[in-house]
Amino acid sequence: MRKERLFTPGPVEIPPRVLKVLGEPIIHHRTPEFKEVFLYTRELFKRLLDSPSENFVYFASSGTGAMEAAVVNFFSPGDEVVVINAGKFGERWVQIASAYGLKVVELRYEWGKTYDPQQLEETLKKRPGVKGVLFQISETSTATYHDHRTIGKLCRERDCLAVADAITALGVYDLRPEEEGIDVLIGGSQKALMLPPGLSTLWFSEKAASRLGRNLPKYYFDVAKEVKKQREGTTAYTPAVSLILGLRESLEMLLEEGMPKVERRHRLLSEATRAAVSALGLKVFSESPSISVTAVYSEEAEELRKKLLELGIRTAGGQDHLKGKLFRISHMGYLDLLDHLAAIGALEAALAELKNDVTLFGKGVSAFQRVAFGR
Amino acid sequence: MRKERLFTPGPVEIPPRVLKVLGEPIIHHRTPEFKEVFLYTRELFKRLLDSPSENFVYFASSGTGAMEAAVVNFFSPGDEVVVINAGKFGERWVQIASAYGLKVVELRYEWGKTYDPQQLEETLKKRPGVKGVLFQISETSTATYHDHRTIGKLCRERDCLAVADAITALGVYDLRPEEEGIDVLIGGSQKALMLPPGLSTLWFSEKAASRLGRNLPKYYFDVAKEVKKQREGTTAYTPAVSLILGLRESLEMLLEEGMPKVERRHRLLSEATRAAVSALGLKVFSESPSISVTAVYSEEAEELRKKLLELGIRTAGGQDHLKGKLFRISHMGYLDLLDHLAAIGALEAALAELKNDVTLFGKGVSAFQRVAFGR
Repeated sequence: MRKERLFTPGPVEIPPRVLKVLGEPIIHHRTPEFKEVFLYTRELFKRLLDSPSENFVYFASSGTGAMEAAVVNFFSPGDEVVVINAGKFGERWVQIASAYGLKVVELRYEWGKTYDPQQLEETLKKRPGVKGVLFQISETSTATYHDHRTIGKLCRERDCLAVADAITALGVYDLRPEEEGIDVLIGGSQKALMLPPGLSTLWFSEKAASRLGRNLPKYYFDVAKEVKKQREGTTAYTPAVSLILGLRESLEMLLEEGMPKVERRHRLLSEATRAAVSALGLKVFSESPSISVTAVYSEEAEELRKKLLELGIRTAGGQDHLKGKLFRISHMGYLDLLDHLAAIGALEAALAELKNDVTLFGKGVSAFQRVAFGR
Repeated sequence: MRKERLFTPGPVEIPPRVLKVLGEPIIHHRTPEFKEVFLYTRELFKRLLDSPSENFVYFASSGTGAMEAAVVNFFSPGDEVVVINAGKFGERWVQIASAYGLKVVELRYEWGKTYDPQQLEETLKKRPGVKGVLFQISETSTATYHDHRTIGKLCRERDCLAVADAITALGVYDLRPEEEGIDVLIGGSQKALMLPPGLSTLWFSEKAASRLGRNLPKYYFDVAKEVKKQREGTTAYTPAVSLILGLRESLEMLLEEGMPKVERRHRLLSEATRAAVSALGLKVFSESPSISVTAVYSEEAEELRKKLLELGIRTAGGQDHLKGKLFRISHMGYLDLLDHLAAIGALEAALAELKNDVTLFGKGVSAFQRVAFGR
């Protein structure tokens, strides 16, 4: 009997309540019934971001599609943008922006580090023409949190948009983009929204709205066209119907719990996991750990991942030059403290086998428990 | 976000593969389609018990219904039967047999103990007229295994039926009733068959078949009538259609794993659990522990159960005079080693809170791991 748990940072474990809806007969997207659900999810989405604004759209695409939409809808060719590049997804901002002829000022940091706020501020001062700062709130490849509030604050003071890839932050952190000075905020369904992949979200501020319709070529990812339609409960192209139906459930779940509590939950899961990792003599990779996912550095990462998978825990590996050196344990989706405790127990078993050292049994688990259950 | 795991000895966690089928549109039971599935499950059931015999029936009832069927179909009023009574379900045999006017010779044992084979043999020698020995293979109330092979052997030598309540043994132990001298073997869907409640099974030997149609009143639980119908792929009364559809899946799962491996799996889960319980200073209740379920004796059983439930682990309590003194952790259903590890971790957290002693963290888990993953 094999039972596998997804501890990958997308796709994630889907709650039964969502799965149930996904298994129901599909409804047509040009019906009053769908329109009602669609508009209802929009009300929930506003509550998720604690903003009454109607400035947001869904796309039937992966998160990268919405990243591209951010570039082509809010910038013009030749616009200067700063990219915080400290991982694979920072790199992706560079690639998309470059593909559309933006002038990219890269602030590069070693993988596992976060950005230097002073350096960012100085860069923006030196280059007053910078039109946007493109960054990740949670850089998934290195499991690093980039303080989004500081970037929001710096951009608010300037004619500059704070463009946040929140793909592994939305549904984890209690994000309030309006309050925090974020201008564009991007999400993806297969992360903490606890859905299958295929739906992305793009929220934008009034400041960003005033820039809409810049002269970069676009068709599918046309935010102005979509937002007009979607406010009325329809879409320019066929929407991801079942994901919208699932989104109603997952947003209701998040809102029933309340985003402050949701953030505290992820904080506890990630803190306890990091305590366990350290207690087992492994290295937490990031200097500014994300609460969405934890990256563990180990020369034996691949062997550990393989053993973990045999035991029923699917983790993600490292990307690019960190392939084989990292394994990543996600805290997103339908995973609770006990699921994590089991994963740590499995990690101990994997390590104990690898090092032929059964004295490791209980070491990580007890460190985890002290954080999770200790008083 | 709340996630609850059923560690109760029925109902149990249902595998996704079975749930999927249960959620499908219902089919009519008087169709060639259903007949085909029904007959196919019969082929699987034969493989489950490693017997080519067609002598078995399903009932739309709980397990108790099939226990009653065993009494009313294979015995006559005034027949003398021995009941091994060492728990709530042994007691149930006494009640059913008495209700139908059988003469019950009770072999009573303290709850938590198993029977004395010598005493049973002497009783059968002293009373050559005894027509049956009624017992549990796994006495769920005390989590005790009663050696069924010895009873089978003793009955085979006599004109006496070995009538086994295998409700929490079928799908756990690699039962081979034909080989083991068992004459009637009863199962229930909501245990290791990993289904919702509502379906019971009754297998009987050729020796039992020769007794069919004794003159006790019966209508719904008429084995002779049912077996004739069911061999042809139909039933006397409306069958539990969705449970039959689910049974196809769960039997396929068990047979794909293979019953020797299924038994080893339960053996490992229960052994590791008992090791953890002892390491935490708690008492395994049974002197002959079942591998289906583990009963833990504790004066603080109810507080522990409550805390476990808060953490997401639903266990069963003690029954009758052991109410408040036991909690029972089932190993049946869709629960693997890591689920159990999580349950032990939760038990540690519950105990640590109760005793205000965080040094308990890791003690049970590491004992569990030594059995589960140690070499």
